[in-house]
Amino acid sequence: MRPSGRRPDQLREISLEPGFAPHAEGSCLIRCGNTHVLCTASVQERVPPFLRNTGRGWVTAEYGMLPRSTDRRTDREAARGKQSGRTQEIQRLIGRSLRAVIDLESFGERQIILDCDVLRADGGTRCASITGAYVALHQALQWLVRSEEIPAMPRIEPVAAISCGIFNGEAVLDLDYPEDSEAEADANFVMTRSGGIVEIQVTAEEDPLSGDDFARMHALARSGIEELARLQQQALTASAI
Amino acid sequence: MRPSGRRPDQLREISLEPGFAPHAEGSCLIRCGNTHVLCTASVQERVPPFLRNTGRGWVTAEYGMLPRSTDRRTDREAARGKQSGRTQEIQRLIGRSLRAVIDLESFGERQIILDCDVLRADGGTRCASITGAYVALHQALQWLVRSEEIPAMPRIEPVAAISCGIFNGEAVLDLDYPEDSEAEADANFVMTRSGGIVEIQVTAEEDPLSGDDFARMHALARSGIEELARLQQQALTASAI
Amino acid sequence: MRPSGRRPDQLREISLEPGFAPHAEGSCLIRCGNTHVLCTASVQERVPPFLRNTGRGWVTAEYGMLPRSTDRRTDREAARGKQSGRTQEIQRLIGRSLRAVIDLESFGERQIILDCDVLRADGGTRCASITGAYVALHQALQWLVRSEEIPAMPRIEPVAAISCGIFNGEAVLDLDYPEDSEAEADANFVMTRSGGIVEIQVTAEEDPLSGDDFARMHALARSGIEELARLQQQALTASAI
Amino acid sequence: MRPSGRRPDQLREISLEPGFAPHAEGSCLIRCGNTHVLCTASVQERVPPFLRNTGRGWVTAEYGMLPRSTDRRTDREAARGKQSGRTQEIQRLIGRSLRAVIDLESFGERQIILDCDVLRADGGTRCASITGAYVALHQALQWLVRSEEIPAMPRIEPVAAISCGIFNGEAVLDLDYPEDSEAEADANFVMTRSGGIVEIQVTAEEDPLSGDDFARMHALARSGIEELARLQQQALTASAI
Amino acid sequence: MRPSGRRPDQLREISLEPGFAPHAEGSCLIRCGNTHVLCTASVQERVPPFLRNTGRGWVTAEYGMLPRSTDRRTDREAARGKQSGRTQEIQRLIGRSLRAVIDLESFGERQIILDCDVLRADGGTRCASITGAYVALHQALQWLVRSEEIPAMPRIEPVAAISCGIFNGEAVLDLDYPEDSEAEADANFVMTRSGGIVEIQVTAEEDPLSGDDFARMHALARSGIEELARLQQQALTASAI
Amino acid sequence: MRPSGRRPDQLREISLEPGFAPHAEGSCLIRCGNTHVLCTASVQERVPPFLRNTGRGWVTAEYGMLPRSTDRRTDREAARGKQSGRTQEIQRLIGRSLRAVIDLESFGERQIILDCDVLRADGGTRCASITGAYVALHQALQWLVRSEEIPAMPRIEPVAAISCGIFNGEAVLDLDYPEDSEAEADANFVMTRSGGIVEIQVTAEEDPLSGDDFARMHALARSGIEELARLQQQALTASAI
Repeated sequence: MRPSGRRPDQLREISLEPGFAPHAEGSCLIRCGNTHVLCTASVQERVPPFLRNTGRGWVTAEYGMLPRSTDRRTDREAARGKQSGRTQEIQRLIGRSLRAVIDLESFGERQIILDCDVLRADGGTRCASITGAYVALHQALQWLVRSEEIPAMPRIEPVAAISCGIFNGEAVLDLDYPEDSEAEADANFVMTRSGGIVEIQVTAEEDPLSGDDFARMHALARSGIEELARLQQQALTASAI
Repeated sequence: MRPSGRRPDQLREISLEPGFAPHAEGSCLIRCGNTHVLCTASVQERVPPFLRNTGRGWVTAEYGMLPRSTDRRTDREAARGKQSGRTQEIQRLIGRSLRAVIDLESFGERQIILDCDVLRADGGTRCASITGAYVALHQALQWLVRSEEIPAMPRIEPVAAISCGIFNGEAVLDLDYPEDSEAEADANFVMTRSGGIVEIQVTAEEDPLSGDDFARMHALARSGIEELARLQQQALTASAI
Repeated sequence: MRPSGRRPDQLREISLEPGFAPHAEGSCLIRCGNTHVLCTASVQERVPPFLRNTGRGWVTAEYGMLPRSTDRRTDREAARGKQSGRTQEIQRLIGRSLRAVIDLESFGERQIILDCDVLRADGGTRCASITGAYVALHQALQWLVRSEEIPAMPRIEPVAAISCGIFNGEAVLDLDYPEDSEAEADANFVMTRSGGIVEIQVTAEEDPLSGDDFARMHALARSGIEELARLQQQALTASAI
Repeated sequence: MRPSGRRPDQLREISLEPGFAPHAEGSCLIRCGNTHVLCTASVQERVPPFLRNTGRGWVTAEYGMLPRSTDRRTDREAARGKQSGRTQEIQRLIGRSLRAVIDLESFGERQIILDCDVLRADGGTRCASITGAYVALHQALQWLVRSEEIPAMPRIEPVAAISCGIFNGEAVLDLDYPEDSEAEADANFVMTRSGGIVEIQVTAEEDPLSGDDFARMHALARSGIEELARLQQQALTASAI
Repeated sequence: MRPSGRRPDQLREISLEPGFAPHAEGSCLIRCGNTHVLCTASVQERVPPFLRNTGRGWVTAEYGMLPRSTDRRTDREAARGKQSGRTQEIQRLIGRSLRAVIDLESFGERQIILDCDVLRADGGTRCASITGAYVALHQALQWLVRSEEIPAMPRIEPVAAISCGIFNGEAVLDLDYPEDSEAEADANFVMTRSGGIVEIQVTAEEDPLSGDDFARMHALARSGIEELARLQQQALTASAI
Repeated sequence: MRPSGRRPDQLREISLEPGFAPHAEGSCLIRCGNTHVLCTASVQERVPPFLRNTGRGWVTAEYGMLPRSTDRRTDREAARGKQSGRTQEIQRLIGRSLRAVIDLESFGERQIILDCDVLRADGGTRCASITGAYVALHQALQWLVRSEEIPAMPRIEPVAAISCGIFNGEAVLDLDYPEDSEAEADANFVMTRSGGIVEIQVTAEEDPLSGDDFARMHALARSGIEELARLQQQALTASAI
């Protein structure tokens, strides 16, 4: 039995609110239960030095948590003067995940920065960030088309992310914080709508994990990603009206 | 004529939403027109070294802006590895303002950290932070009473802050960003409900300011603060029900 | 009665020594009682990136204290690896104050850096810095004329700064350290010779301040600034001979 | 055909040299083809603050590359003043991997630091680090027993790591740098000798990866890990004589 | 012929002004021609961690230059966020030199920090710092005796420092900046009054230096140090009256 | 009697292994007893800003120690976020020493970075670094000739370094760590094969050093340097075959 009363294959209640940040070229407030992340996409005309004069663009991500998004206050990274290893790991993952589903030549020599800021944290913030960042990125590309900066909408494959875990010996989908802190294993799956693998990260907490348990988590993740992709599509369609 | 069409003595639309951050001991989302700041109050049992074993507590503040709270993306301070001079100046001001209205011995040897994070910026973020932080601090003190950590609610004097400026030669209240960037002078008033001065910061942008212009801004500020104090009181009363 | 025996409206003994730093384009050693600040003005041919190719110049300031300028040794900021919030606040104030009295297009696309280094501290170092920096800046502009870099002396309005406070219930001018640490309120006035307001910063230490007390401090400040402006003029005239 | 001429399931030539660093409590120089990593284990009597007085120990890792371990010189992180996101990600992975195979209460309130320094890099440095660090950690535990600090050798499960990839459409084991930079997908498997999963990290470089390709890599990894575990055992036995 | 017209064995005009910094336990403003350094000695009751409970004290030094002590403005190290390699090298040298002439057990478990701040620079700042710091340290020890913190004046051997160089093929004493920047070799001698060697640092600028040239510089240094020691003695005697 | 049983004028066993780092343009693993340093020379086409468009090149050095090169683990500088004063002092010395023996115009507008990384430390790491870096630099220059980047091998004067000390009252050559930590004085001599002085650094540990003791160390150093220069020559000849 899960602490939240959810079935093993049940996502938390998900909502996606595109256009939440009016200044940004693209944005989405994603809520996965009590995990709320504000994702924005900012288009810049400059690319990093290694891409200058190549005709290719870049997508990168930054991640942060508001100090009191967590149950106990987390130190502010700006005040400590550096980003933690965890933060860097997460923002590198978000960036790689989104770069994997778009052709970097399709939107010109521009950089799109995806900022994922956690307003409220209850587990699964990196997965929510990826799922929301896809919507923000999609909007920013539409903005480039509307602004006549690029002639047509680039091909971008829908991508989302979800966590799975082994909790009390059973594979469960979409861990919240109480589950996450007790789980025997923890995995994050970044996949396309059609089930293509973009990133998988599996960590056994105490004891190594069997191949069968991994397979069970993988299957749950596929069904969760399908649902998330459907919600992304719905949100983008609604916001385009 | 103000760009927003407001009268010279007219505040933007203000809303205060106490309890917005469920993890925090106190919190308030303040919206002043398109300036939105999330203020939280976190109670910690440790005080800074210089107060250990003195029986006195401390109130301090930290301030930040989400990168895309602004029209053009602002660099993330955590990524740059340090807080700007502006950020430090603002968070020092918030801390001083709230310390001035409470007896630091009244809540024991504890530290209360006020985090003011700007979700959307349209001028006046430091004033909104102070006005919202008062509500969050008030809630945190009530939480200490409810938790039986302190026997009775400490005396805290209501404090709020508002900007004034000289815009097109006229004194106006509560500048938004388009006014702020064009104003001839800019002032922030931190005052108690009864008009006591806690902090005043005046800056002439191009030419020095006359004493009369200062007096006009001061008068506007008094009326604005009264209105803000009324809204604070209303919000705290509503949230206590 | 003031600890120093001064009358409420009496400045400390002030001396201004222009040209103290022979390498600098402009300089002034200012002594306000036991507060001694060395101010230098350095002319650089490069401006910050946001001003390149605009034809405008820039004036900025840096502030520091020698570790043993204070009664107890203060940690060296270079050794700690960062400037404190207080230091940044002060140097931003000095920069804004001097930029307010000069037309930034009048001396070409150059940067003038005002370094204010406290050799001995007894309260009022930020005010002394501004008063001395004006003299250094004036000399640097004269140097630009003498060097035939600019055709004529730019118009610069004399500016000075002085602190006031409420000490034992009475408004007093030009606080020294023993007064400053006991004052009920503390204000810094940056004003032109003719009484125009450039910056005002008021802080109530324990209890909010009444409007009347503020008015008394403002009046004291005006008379103090007049005296300082007279001494600046005198020093510049003497050094020009 | 692989650039090195190896079969798809063929490891590079591996050598493990335990005791390479005479000062350290445990050490191993691991060579995987032209990737050479010096792993040392240092026993310290202090644990991080969160473990004080818990009776539990800690295992952590640090990772670095000599500047000219790479084909083109890599900037020295000590000179740049911070560790890159990649470095932090790798050292966090090494630490988690080794903590997963040992009971942290079994060696008392001590910290064991695993330093993995790359002397020569040709792909797969994080995997080589984990495989070598296991040997160094094993030696350090033996040292604790010999020094009579702990009564008996703690149970530690052999763990090793290997990369796999999809290269020219085929799953291959143990990528060297030329393969790594061309691979369509890249995965790192950290597993126990018996095939238990400790960590898996999969990244699709250009296009998402199919589940079948993942399964093929997983199978290759299992055979590679078995061989590495055999070599670890052999090296530890030889060094114990 | 030297640019300054001095004889090869002639020091610049030297003045030592003990007690220049009234807050400090010991201080000395040393002027060597146009090189002016303010040296202060601060007594602290805390020692560095490695000396706690050993009964031994410590002497350490910090060095800095005012930004406009130099002909062209030098960046402020506090603003850049770190001390340069040159600064660290110099302050380490000053600390070692003074520790070498005093028994660290003779003044109890205290730390004496020697701050050497260059107000004006014309070559030879590290030597002037050592020569002045000796006077400041001597005063601080006398202060400890006067304050009855220690029973008797510790034995401290007079130490001073002077530069020599090979300029236009000739050995010369006490280089000023124009000589220093043209010299073929540059040496700093830290010696006791009786000629004992505390530190020597020799650097050949373009071509290696012969043993004979070194011997000539060494002889000049001995005579220079004798003169400096006499001036130190004189200044301490005068200040004690 | 020396702890190692060596005669006063006896070097440790020295080996020089040129070409140890296959990626680098030049490299040398130097072993002086149990002090092992890997020196590499990296040629870069960019020079520091102050040399752009001057036609002159630059030679610079960086120094580091593996954390467990020492008997007790040394903190990793990259993790602490800065290089120690000692590290900076050493790498500046290495850079100066090598720049002194080569004409910086002879290899074009290029920078050669000498990385000296200590794999095992037993005293004398800075001297070993210089001796080994000479070999690496020599190889890099040969590489430039072979690559037809420069027409002919530049003139470079052989340079090496050795420590001497006063141990138990006697002058001894090439201190190992046990001697170094007990020595009354410690000196590092950087000299050319023909005895020209490039750098000398002498430090008296407890008591000042006499001129005679210095002379004895100098004489030992000359003979040691001759031997080192012979070994450098031998190694370069062997590697060229």
